[in-house]
Amino acid sequence: TRLGEDWIFLVLLGITMALVSWTMDYASAKSLQGSGIPELKTILRGVVLKEYLTLKAFIAKVIGLTAALGSGMPVGKEGPFVHIASICAAVLSRFMSFFSGVYQNPYCYTDILTVGCAVGVGCCFGTPLGGVLFSIEVTSTYFAVRNYWRGYFAATFSAFIFRVLSVFNKDAVTITALFRTNFRMDFPFDLQELPAFAIIGIACGFLGAFFVYLNRQVVLFMRRPNAMTRFLIKHRLIFPAIVTLVIATLTFPPGFGQFMAGELMPRECISSLFDNFTWTKISGSPYPAGLGRSAAWLHTDVSVFIILLLFFIMKFWMSAVATTMPIPSGAFMPVFILGAAFGRLVGEVMATLFPHGIVFDGILYRIIPGGYAVIGAAALTGAVTHTVSTAVICFELTGQISHILPMMVAVILANMVAQGLQPSLYDSIIQVKK
Amino acid sequence: TRLGEDWIFLVLLGITMALVSWTMDYASAKSLQGSGIPELKTILRGVVLKEYLTLKAFIAKVIGLTAALGSGMPVGKEGPFVHIASICAAVLSRFMSFFSGVYQNPYCYTDILTVGCAVGVGCCFGTPLGGVLFSIEVTSTYFAVRNYWRGYFAATFSAFIFRVLSVFNKDAVTITALFRTNFRMDFPFDLQELPAFAIIGIACGFLGAFFVYLNRQVVLFMRRPNAMTRFLIKHRLIFPAIVTLVIATLTFPPGFGQFMAGELMPRECISSLFDNFTWTKISGSPYPAGLGRSAAWLHTDVSVFIILLLFFIMKFWMSAVATTMPIPSGAFMPVFILGAAFGRLVGEVMATLFPHGIVFDGILYRIIPGGYAVIGAAALTGAVTHTVSTAVICFELTGQISHILPMMVAVILANMVAQGLQPSLYDSIIQVKK
Repeated sequence: TRLGEDWIFLVLLGITMALVSWTMDYASAKSLQGSGIPELKTILRGVVLKEYLTLKAFIAKVIGLTAALGSGMPVGKEGPFVHIASICAAVLSRFMSFFSGVYQNPYCYTDILTVGCAVGVGCCFGTPLGGVLFSIEVTSTYFAVRNYWRGYFAATFSAFIFRVLSVFNKDAVTITALFRTNFRMDFPFDLQELPAFAIIGIACGFLGAFFVYLNRQVVLFMRRPNAMTRFLIKHRLIFPAIVTLVIATLTFPPGFGQFMAGELMPRECISSLFDNFTWTKISGSPYPAGLGRSAAWLHTDVSVFIILLLFFIMKFWMSAVATTMPIPSGAFMPVFILGAAFGRLVGEVMATLFPHGIVFDGILYRIIPGGYAVIGAAALTGAVTHTVSTAVICFELTGQISHILPMMVAVILANMVAQGLQPSLYDSIIQVKK
Repeated sequence: TRLGEDWIFLVLLGITMALVSWTMDYASAKSLQGSGIPELKTILRGVVLKEYLTLKAFIAKVIGLTAALGSGMPVGKEGPFVHIASICAAVLSRFMSFFSGVYQNPYCYTDILTVGCAVGVGCCFGTPLGGVLFSIEVTSTYFAVRNYWRGYFAATFSAFIFRVLSVFNKDAVTITALFRTNFRMDFPFDLQELPAFAIIGIACGFLGAFFVYLNRQVVLFMRRPNAMTRFLIKHRLIFPAIVTLVIATLTFPPGFGQFMAGELMPRECISSLFDNFTWTKISGSPYPAGLGRSAAWLHTDVSVFIILLLFFIMKFWMSAVATTMPIPSGAFMPVFILGAAFGRLVGEVMATLFPHGIVFDGILYRIIPGGYAVIGAAALTGAVTHTVSTAVICFELTGQISHILPMMVAVILANMVAQGLQPSLYDSIIQVKK
């Protein structure tokens, strides 16, 4: 049948891509498998990782990342981007040392790697400010302020080129944010909504810690010597293949995927979760104009709440498992999407609890679930990575800063909870790899 | 006459306030006169400044700052705010050391002062993100990343209280930005406008360096031993009194002030410079609805360009001189206003050069001079203080992030030029004080 062929095609494509990606990663060096940020962090602390900054690793990571993203797995790209950017920086500094002795200084080497990391994050999302701050928080313990402005310099130009290319490419009209939101600005939220934002923050703290825990448990389970893991280690290709098979089958849009918006690409997922509609009010009535891809979240038979909850639960374990696969991948984007879905869920619940909005000064302001989604995304990524600059990345991605205070509160609460329970995802990976 | 009485009243008020402020500053300690940021910077580098963190200094600074702001001089408040916040932090840490030995650790002391500085800047403008980043750039050489998140924590809550109080006070409807702008978001600017933004950046770099130079020359001139300075040192009160007299007279609204929007308070200045109108198109025709205080920039006989240019030139030397006065004052706000006026000037020139806007894809987009003003403000403050986080402060103050890339480019160019020519204003003050 047609459906069956589609399924086979998707699954085969996914598995092929995952295996290409795995091969690339395997070919480069065993120590380099997985994300790039934990490794850079150890290098910046003075550990020498051979083979990390080589041309071979560069080629392997570029092809591997492309294949990994093509496989449709819920993996991010910030890790390999950081790796690729720092290889570029290291190669460039080796090249420049022919001309100036400054570049042979070991301090300079660290500086250049730090800036490379900032560029990697910055051009990954087109967010220069957030990229620099995120890379500082993730890699450093003590930060040389002189690198701060260098990082901005490099990251601004990389983000600039990134966005200008999409203008020349006619993808965008001019340089704007990647996931531009259009929330009302005169009254973005009411003070009475703040407890809900705080709850999102605290809940995201627990969820983020649980994500890190789950991720580590999967890795540790794969390490435990028993018949199954011995078999998997012997036949290395089986693990990525099985994971891809299961995830691709579950998200297959005409199948179970219809209950978890499986047809949406990660990018469409984010823009639809950040949209300006209230889905609980739409379902049942005819779709309004401009709904676009958000229609994937509305099922004729199943409530929006169930869809969002299913999406969140399924994607949660899928992301936790997928990021343990030995392919070039990051965890930022999948966690970001998870957080957005969670925030949206809370927002839709709020919109149902207060169907007529909140009255202030005689004017009725309706609740915007998209704003909750933005806050949830920032809070969950903040909790998983133990950073507060995810809030800045969010502002830059959405192009709106009106929710700054509730978002800062949510991100800080999420960090407080998560830092008390678990190490950050990157520290967890470092600990496990030791 | 009525006018004369008004003038006498304004000048007397100004002089009284300036003298109260001066007395307060003089009473606290001679080493503490002027801004607070350079002193904190030296303390954080390990120099012991006696009397800096005392209750006496606290009271003197609070009263002195209030009087200084009331005098109508073009001075800012970020320096004394930083000083006040770090005194609070130091007192709090001394109090907490009764309960826990952690607080007696010298590292902890530095940490608390750093966070205090972040809070000072953050609640001065209601900008937690920018406050933390600005305080890092201004005070530190190496920054402990652990303080980063503590700084956010403290600054977010201080900004939150600051904004919530204005909601309770019915000044604002809900928590929004201080100088909220309403630029169009679908197409904030065209790529063809980028050269103009770059020119603003480079020009602001030169202007910023010149501001620092001028400020230092005034201080050095007052130090040079000759008959006049000996007289001024003997009669200490004369210098602030004369400066206040001259500045208050020149800005007197019905007099010369009418040619430089003298009737506007600093806050009104900024919101009117950031407005959404194109003044060159308004002048002559009847005023549109919603123009508000911006009408002060439109004179029946004189062109908008002349008014803006006069405002810029007059305020430039006034700010440079006023910030040398031995009263509790900062230079951030005056420089910010100067930059906004300069950017607005360039924007109005652009709007005159391209009266029908810029065509892209068959649609005509008009030029928004307010956007140029925001970029100019960030670039000039960045050049004077040698920081790039003024861009973040601008986003938070305006609540709009749509101009992020041109602003980053302008701020970076301004920094490149200014750092090559002069030390930052704070470093310049430290060098002169030695």
